Amino acid sequence: MASTQLTFSSQESHRAWLASQAALPAGFRVGTMRLDFTPREAPKPAKMTLTLIALDRPTPDFAAVFTRNALPGAPIVIGRRRIEEPTLGAVIVNNKVSNVCAPGGVEASEKICAETGRLLGLAARQVLPSSTGVIGWGLPVDAMLRSLSQAAATLAPGSILPAAEGIVTTDLYPKIRRAALGGGSIVGIAKGAGMIEPNLATMLVYVLTDLAVPRADLRAMLRRAVDETFNTISVDSDTSTSDTVALISSGCVAGVDRAAFERALTTVCGDLAEDVVRNGEGVRHVIRVRVERAANVGLARALGKAIVNAPLFKCAVAGNDPNVGRLVQAIGKHVGAHAPSTDLSKLRLTMGGIEIFAGGVFQLDPRKETALVDHLRDAELYSSVIPKDGVFTAPIHFPPHERCVEIVVDLGTDSAGATVLGGDLTHEYVSENADYRS
Amino acid sequence: MASTQLTFSSQESHRAWLASQAALPAGFRVGTMRLDFTPREAPKPAKMTLTLIALDRPTPDFAAVFTRNALPGAPIVIGRRRIEEPTLGAVIVNNKVSNVCAPGGVEASEKICAETGRLLGLAARQVLPSSTGVIGWGLPVDAMLRSLSQAAATLAPGSILPAAEGIVTTDLYPKIRRAALGGGSIVGIAKGAGMIEPNLATMLVYVLTDLAVPRADLRAMLRRAVDETFNTISVDSDTSTSDTVALISSGCVAGVDRAAFERALTTVCGDLAEDVVRNGEGVRHVIRVRVERAANVGLARALGKAIVNAPLFKCAVAGNDPNVGRLVQAIGKHVGAHAPSTDLSKLRLTMGGIEIFAGGVFQLDPRKETALVDHLRDAELYSSVIPKDGVFTAPIHFPPHERCVEIVVDLGTDSAGATVLGGDLTHEYVSENADYRS
Repeated sequence: MASTQLTFSSQESHRAWLASQAALPAGFRVGTMRLDFTPREAPKPAKMTLTLIALDRPTPDFAAVFTRNALPGAPIVIGRRRIEEPTLGAVIVNNKVSNVCAPGGVEASEKICAETGRLLGLAARQVLPSSTGVIGWGLPVDAMLRSLSQAAATLAPGSILPAAEGIVTTDLYPKIRRAALGGGSIVGIAKGAGMIEPNLATMLVYVLTDLAVPRADLRAMLRRAVDETFNTISVDSDTSTSDTVALISSGCVAGVDRAAFERALTTVCGDLAEDVVRNGEGVRHVIRVRVERAANVGLARALGKAIVNAPLFKCAVAGNDPNVGRLVQAIGKHVGAHAPSTDLSKLRLTMGGIEIFAGGVFQLDPRKETALVDHLRDAELYSSVIPKDGVFTAPIHFPPHERCVEIVVDLGTDSAGATVLGGDLTHEYVSENADYRS
Repeated sequence: MASTQLTFSSQESHRAWLASQAALPAGFRVGTMRLDFTPREAPKPAKMTLTLIALDRPTPDFAAVFTRNALPGAPIVIGRRRIEEPTLGAVIVNNKVSNVCAPGGVEASEKICAETGRLLGLAARQVLPSSTGVIGWGLPVDAMLRSLSQAAATLAPGSILPAAEGIVTTDLYPKIRRAALGGGSIVGIAKGAGMIEPNLATMLVYVLTDLAVPRADLRAMLRRAVDETFNTISVDSDTSTSDTVALISSGCVAGVDRAAFERALTTVCGDLAEDVVRNGEGVRHVIRVRVERAANVGLARALGKAIVNAPLFKCAVAGNDPNVGRLVQAIGKHVGAHAPSTDLSKLRLTMGGIEIFAGGVFQLDPRKETALVDHLRDAELYSSVIPKDGVFTAPIHFPPHERCVEIVVDLGTDSAGATVLGGDLTHEYVSENADYRS
């Protein structure tokens, strides 16, 4: 999925690379502001960052896709209306509070949009809101309204890095991907499957471009790109109430080739999707499953997801244990429950290029076992640090490499295929999501 | 689901209770034998227990249901043939090696059946085999053949406890449930969702009765009882390659009322199912979800399973954190993906009897939060012991109580309902499944 194979030895070298990717496309400015507030629902003070993405001129050329969760956040409800508006002029994002099913949530979010619009000379309906953070809390509207003018005052062209940093929650590092083409660029940022502090689990992605592509084409391309990229990843099988991927063109650079644009867009989305998994909560190994020669893409993708979501296999990977029995269990479980007519007699499995199953039986020996352990160790992002207090935390703030645990599932029956990315299941994941209260 | 509310203060008091439940129905004997072997696939020696359940006379009245996994173990392949045989005379169970997709697995298992039959005066086809343990290893046939006569020599009526102990793997304690009726009894044993050592994840259940019930009735009753009990539990959403539930009548006691028998059978199965969850890998809280007023039982059960399988909610429960946002996320995810036409406007949620969601918004305040934490703490089976080596292990070998985290999801639209049991997601689970290698 990734078009690149990067390695980093330190947070500094990773930040230098991010800076090299961060040039904003023409026609955009970003600004951020940090604020303190005390949530009504909890007695202790908290911090939030407001991130503002503004266009120099409102654009008709924008697209967005939203979560399929049936109990979505207020910004999703509003976003589905905004997509029908003739133009978009700004995006306002807050972390820390997701504004999901909170009393008066839609009205609160509209107030933020109205004030953002007033500061930028826009109507509220030209502002797309996003929120990520605790589910169940309401937005601290008054504190946010007071801070918005300061966020607007920091608006600047040049670098998207402040926005990439502003939207994160439990992410270990910011995520930026870019493609240059046709005299312009496509630049995307993402916040990943973090669950900041108590309970946040949202992916927010903003892809900006100065290349002029009409609205209808942007929307069709974004749907296809998301389907191939963000829809093929899973950190923990949970679906956020706030997931959003937005694509906005300032239209400053004319004449781009549409096919080249779509290829570049898909690459940027694919790289960001892999970044999100690699920085998923507690992820120590990225698992890439390629399902080949399946009856259809739907089965190939579902089988890939069944593997990367199987808790026992995820735990084995976390332990650098080539427990291929659990891999076979996951395949048999999915096929038995959802595609029982599938012929598994030609099933062939490899891990790290090593054949582990063929002809209906395991193909294992001690030499292969050693090679499989080496493959798992090679794909590990960091070693667990055993904590004195029982709370495991990731010891890195950068992605040391882009290697994956590579699994190929060859069904041998037809011609459809799909690639799915997921992560392992670690003590760091449990600590992040169970150990944050005393 | 449980018909009882037991509490135990020590392993000794639990064992005394087990002994009080363990009387074998008339017409059965059990025997066990422990053996050492060195697997061909691994260089280190291992231990296995053979458990033999023998009928005094072969019976036509037996029933079994097997895993839906599409890559099942050899004993499942054989078991599906045995079910067509006119009579059953014995069950031979081994732990440690599951015999799944191992080369020559079916032939190996048939050899064990043949020798068991020879020792007991039965044909191989009158012996039902079961295996649980490492997926990928082959049975140590020679070592097992040598030990079978010793297992047969220990066959004795009286107590089922040796068999309940013989079949376990990572279970913290044996599981026995009984019902007395009509001058006879129904006695069941189970091994739970353990993953012994590297990679075992199988539920095996044997229910024995001396009450005479014809084969066809037994089979219909078992299907219904399993559907209501074992099919409504989930420890970690994985489906074993070896799951088996067998029901065998020796026919010694005539004249039992069929309806009373089915009620008692369902109770025994329900109690064993709850035992399996309560002793599930790493489980510190049992979560009971009651879904009410749904459009149909299928939706109610699927929604309950979506909740008890949502990793983020499971982690929150592990941390005694009433993170109801994650509960709402799990409901919205399932409905959005699988039942998008469901009206959620009347959704009402309670935890521990406390209303937390109604009228489309959360119903939370600090007082409720305190009460919810108390409810979660009250349902906790034990506190985590922070280990120096990072490997978390459960500090108990008995079930201290039978309390659950009680969740009610009232959809308010129709009249169907279902109850689902699951567990939380803990460091003990990850340690059991990821930390067993150095």
